[in-house]
Amino acid sequence: MADGFAFRVEATDPGSRARVGRLTTPHGDIETPAFMPVGTAGTVKGVLPEQVRAAGYGLVLANTYHLALRPGVEVVARHGGLHRFMNWDGAILTDSGGFQVFSLGRGIGEGRGGKAPRVTEQGVVFRSHVDGARVEFTPEGVVAMQEALGSDIAMVLDVCPPSTAGRDEIERAMDLTTRWAQRAMAARSRPDQALFGIVQGGLDLDLRRRHAGEVTALPFEGFAIGGLSVGEPLERRIPVVEATASWLPEDRPRYLMGVGTPQDLIQAALAGVDLADCVFPTRAGRNGLLFTSAGRVAIRNAAHREDLSPADPACDCPTCRSYTRAYLRHLTLSNEILACVLNTLHNLHFFSRLMARVRAAIRAGTLRDLAAEVEHVYPVGEAESPGGSHDA
Amino acid sequence: MADGFAFRVEATDPGSRARVGRLTTPHGDIETPAFMPVGTAGTVKGVLPEQVRAAGYGLVLANTYHLALRPGVEVVARHGGLHRFMNWDGAILTDSGGFQVFSLGRGIGEGRGGKAPRVTEQGVVFRSHVDGARVEFTPEGVVAMQEALGSDIAMVLDVCPPSTAGRDEIERAMDLTTRWAQRAMAARSRPDQALFGIVQGGLDLDLRRRHAGEVTALPFEGFAIGGLSVGEPLERRIPVVEATASWLPEDRPRYLMGVGTPQDLIQAALAGVDLADCVFPTRAGRNGLLFTSAGRVAIRNAAHREDLSPADPACDCPTCRSYTRAYLRHLTLSNEILACVLNTLHNLHFFSRLMARVRAAIRAGTLRDLAAEVEHVYPVGEAESPGGSHDA
Repeated sequence: MADGFAFRVEATDPGSRARVGRLTTPHGDIETPAFMPVGTAGTVKGVLPEQVRAAGYGLVLANTYHLALRPGVEVVARHGGLHRFMNWDGAILTDSGGFQVFSLGRGIGEGRGGKAPRVTEQGVVFRSHVDGARVEFTPEGVVAMQEALGSDIAMVLDVCPPSTAGRDEIERAMDLTTRWAQRAMAARSRPDQALFGIVQGGLDLDLRRRHAGEVTALPFEGFAIGGLSVGEPLERRIPVVEATASWLPEDRPRYLMGVGTPQDLIQAALAGVDLADCVFPTRAGRNGLLFTSAGRVAIRNAAHREDLSPADPACDCPTCRSYTRAYLRHLTLSNEILACVLNTLHNLHFFSRLMARVRAAIRAGTLRDLAAEVEHVYPVGEAESPGGSHDA
Repeated sequence: MADGFAFRVEATDPGSRARVGRLTTPHGDIETPAFMPVGTAGTVKGVLPEQVRAAGYGLVLANTYHLALRPGVEVVARHGGLHRFMNWDGAILTDSGGFQVFSLGRGIGEGRGGKAPRVTEQGVVFRSHVDGARVEFTPEGVVAMQEALGSDIAMVLDVCPPSTAGRDEIERAMDLTTRWAQRAMAARSRPDQALFGIVQGGLDLDLRRRHAGEVTALPFEGFAIGGLSVGEPLERRIPVVEATASWLPEDRPRYLMGVGTPQDLIQAALAGVDLADCVFPTRAGRNGLLFTSAGRVAIRNAAHREDLSPADPACDCPTCRSYTRAYLRHLTLSNEILACVLNTLHNLHFFSRLMARVRAAIRAGTLRDLAAEVEHVYPVGEAESPGGSHDA
């Protein structure tokens, strides 16, 4: 276990695999299950760190891929790391960039094979989506970058095909991810940073089981379920999350990557997942979609033109305490920056409070009741989230 | 004098016409000379009202034209007025929309004359720049709209030709503005709202003097100098401000509309101006231009790539207390919303502190020394401000 890092299960739900845990990091403790807001480029878009903290978060995600391309890891390192750079004194998990390389990175060739990043045993070569520069990510290099960023939790580089790719492609990606995980583990040098492995395997439970076995054979401080929320419908995702989580060790945090509708988060908690991240609350907020205790509210809707009520009467966030739906609608229609700020603040509070209710329900043994209640307001399949762990 | 409204000169500068005053409004006292941030659509772009207050402001400007077109005055009125709508408990000055009609409003005709708003004795007809709707502003209608918005200070509707227009056009605009001012005064009905007249006359001192006489013959609670910062260089503007201010009553606040580089604000204070507004600090902030005690900083500049110093080492604003130039540069280059927030916060603080220094210098009799100091860092003619009173 890395210095200053611990994970302890404090309560379990008798009716499911859900548990409440306490994740200790060099930058504070986080109660799990927890949702992590996404701060792609070293900022949770539109909100100040103190506002993120006030919304109830102690752990945010940042994207190694984005920070490596801009401003460059060395610029962040000059600040002594990402915490100082972005003025966030809570904990930070950095992803490895695997997902982003495959979803954002451009190919390096001109002709055949120029469309996709080039994957070799050594690593992956791609062109930056920012300036077209040729970039290589290797398992060792990505560990070094995250050590320079100084995050509390780093992730291994993985190969991320779509969950709906063919079995051969999934299997090759999986096997390479295992070898890269071994190399990442061998390369780590920072005693105060946790390193998490990532289980791939697409939607195939046999592959997932095999890969879980391979990755959990390594002494990672935690394990992630990767490769989901990239095309598959929720009803296909849930059984994969449930099974894969069950093959991960009880005494380590389990992190479901890039997944995060209210439905997803409840289902993940039921499956024994401890951490999740998604761009959904922040991106939806910028687009004028608000999460409330009565369901989704599209604030641009004409019905809110003269609506003097807050976004959610049951909410005590700064937005709901002081602003009407009519004002939020006006700002959103006017493309005002403050619309992004206020809508994002509200959604961050909603997700934070949802996770607090999940934890309380687990302790009370009533998580299935909460799941039914949330399912009533946020029916499965109502709308898919924009999956993914980078908020661009 | 309107209920709850007062203006008292507290100190004068022996070496100039500058004075320190206290403007009392139903929403608090404001020390003058004061700069008003522009909150065009009911929001100072990118910042929360509590952040505007913390930056030292007690009075902001909002645009009647913009609010009338979107969301509509009636929506704001349903909230009980603009203070509640935008969650600002300080004072608000609303402009009349005159400037915006002529700079943003489209013509109503299809062919000849379709390019410009149509001005008649009755008022001005134009097409909304938001949705193309035909809109008519009259002196009485604009007073009624501002009474419904519930601002502390309302402005009369005026005709705003460019300051560089021909004498005939300026004179016709001026005469019509006088008749509209009389109609506005006759139409006002709200006892708790001050109404300011506007002196036009372009760059012609004879016209300015004549119009100042006509407008000050009416019992307005304050007087504005309009029609400037719309094309003329600073060196032509200063003598007009100086002369016009001298023709306004000593016992009423004087407001210079839409003007606001540091140089402008100092010159205006020397001329005896009490209030000014401009989009400059907010718009410049969004564009990555920071005002500092050592001059302007273009934060996108590569020189700031690894600069660990704050935007302004002499500044104690939230941005300078916690963020480096390298981080601000990164956010600005990445088009992050937080760049707008942090840069705007800093610039608002800079302008607020500049005005506090102006007031202290007037009390100490050292305003000309401060003017020389500011002129050294912000030379006249270095760059013109984007003039105007709406931040779009």
